[in-house]
Amino acid sequence: MLKIAVLGAGGLGKAAAKIIGMKQEMRLVAICDQSGYAFNPAGLTCPTSLTGLTTPTENDSIGEIIKLRDEIDGIFIALPNLPNEFIPNVLKRFIEAGYRGVFTDALKRTGAMELMFELDKGLKSTQSTYITGAGATPGLLTAAAVIAAQSFVEVIKVDIRWGVGISNWEEYKATIREDIAHLPGWTVEKAKALSDEEVSKLLDERNGILELHEMEHADDLLLERVGVVDARDKVTVGGVMDTRSAKKPVTTTMTLTGKTFDGKISSHKFLLGDETTMAANVVGPALGYLKRAKWLNEHGIYGIYGSTEFMPAVVK
Amino acid sequence: MLKIAVLGAGGLGKAAAKIIGMKQEMRLVAICDQSGYAFNPAGLTCPTSLTGLTTPTENDSIGEIIKLRDEIDGIFIALPNLPNEFIPNVLKRFIEAGYRGVFTDALKRTGAMELMFELDKGLKSTQSTYITGAGATPGLLTAAAVIAAQSFVEVIKVDIRWGVGISNWEEYKATIREDIAHLPGWTVEKAKALSDEEVSKLLDERNGILELHEMEHADDLLLERVGVVDARDKVTVGGVMDTRSAKKPVTTTMTLTGKTFDGKISSHKFLLGDETTMAANVVGPALGYLKRAKWLNEHGIYGIYGSTEFMPAVVK
Repeated sequence: MLKIAVLGAGGLGKAAAKIIGMKQEMRLVAICDQSGYAFNPAGLTCPTSLTGLTTPTENDSIGEIIKLRDEIDGIFIALPNLPNEFIPNVLKRFIEAGYRGVFTDALKRTGAMELMFELDKGLKSTQSTYITGAGATPGLLTAAAVIAAQSFVEVIKVDIRWGVGISNWEEYKATIREDIAHLPGWTVEKAKALSDEEVSKLLDERNGILELHEMEHADDLLLERVGVVDARDKVTVGGVMDTRSAKKPVTTTMTLTGKTFDGKISSHKFLLGDETTMAANVVGPALGYLKRAKWLNEHGIYGIYGSTEFMPAVVK
Repeated sequence: MLKIAVLGAGGLGKAAAKIIGMKQEMRLVAICDQSGYAFNPAGLTCPTSLTGLTTPTENDSIGEIIKLRDEIDGIFIALPNLPNEFIPNVLKRFIEAGYRGVFTDALKRTGAMELMFELDKGLKSTQSTYITGAGATPGLLTAAAVIAAQSFVEVIKVDIRWGVGISNWEEYKATIREDIAHLPGWTVEKAKALSDEEVSKLLDERNGILELHEMEHADDLLLERVGVVDARDKVTVGGVMDTRSAKKPVTTTMTLTGKTFDGKISSHKFLLGDETTMAANVVGPALGYLKRAKWLNEHGIYGIYGSTEFMPAVVK
């Protein structure tokens, strides 16, 4: 039985609480967001326990979770990551506090993930194991690319195109700000500074649709790290988010194109069912990787790894 | 640099020799089939070295490879497995000879794989690591099912339907006999006893097409083992082989249907590009898993595992 803390109580955090509640092998003992935290060693139930989060002393919910470190085996970081340094700094605090355990996240930006990998030494010093990029993209779809790559002696291109439909954008405010930051002419800082009203106005101007191309997504870093691609620009990520309908505007598809040993050019595809939500496709993998991180930790494998590792390897 | 032996010099063995020849991290040092063996510590080149296999003393090529055990880091078993006990017995011989190394295979039948898992203790005693079912199905497609399962709290069904086109069936005699054994009314023993002329006649009667349903494939065992399904009958494998054309008669597809945490029924799909051959889709994964087996071995993880393990885990 893994005692889990979820950092972040937005759409993803709430879904995580709900899914953990359906599992025998995990128990949600703590959750927090910027407004407060909740802790119960016997298990928090969703959504009841999440409605009345305790306001922490000095307005530092993460600090309250760190104090509870001896009660927590594993942590899923479902916090929005604005700016890039935010989640890396949260992890630094756990390391400095000497927390020993396992972590996963649903981090997206390449720049942020580069900062995460710099914390490898610290995680090794505390005998902790961290799997980063364990959501949908990077995560589920990037892992599928590693599997697909096995048929080829050279990978020419990996293209990820996602579709997300959400009927109530208020639940995913932070995710939407992160996506706005990917629009041409926008930055993480500018998106973070938007008021809810400004987000609402921007969505109105676009009929609720955000279409994104050439996103800075860490799928490139993770696939380069294991040798699926020899250069990051061979990986492209884009997508369409409809903030006014739960129906996906496009089918989420990972297409890997490569050359086989006998000289054929071909593409493998991995398609997600349209009925599956972002929450299902992010939180499921994050918890699956958290269990894998525990297994690695029990085998003395510490430090930070990507969601593309521990799969069939790429032979160079 | 991994020094590799390939057991079996049919279509798959030859493709393995060719692919290993394209890799810097692996070197083919030995290969054998029932007619003979070849060994060169500096590396065998394909196909030159495979045309003149040395006839072994006492007609025991496997025995000759076992004698070379100190020169071999890893073994890909690409032998036909008729009867079920054949590959398990080959592995027993390596264990009894005290060989320490890593293995993968492209084993297909559930009954055969059950025998393989019984050898876990022996492999642990020699500090060896074996990943079984590391071809296409089970293998590539089964691994994709583990990834796909992450989005769901309950997996309802996994359906694998493969298409294979081969222009020259003589190269894949053993594979075709194994597939004939899956036809209604046939057994492994009956298929093994067929002469080449009888196989040819059977194929003629079917216009070169073998269509198979409800095959006894170890995808079921491997997915049950990691908890993707709670019963083997939720996994079905079938396919169509055209022995007269390199063009695939159907697109190889893995479809996993499940229920999400929010009650939706949906299907994820993994499709292989039609231009990829059986050889590319079997040998690529087998070598990728061999490198993973080496990594596991270096981390003190011994014994026999399935190709579905070491991926994001299924949380029960």
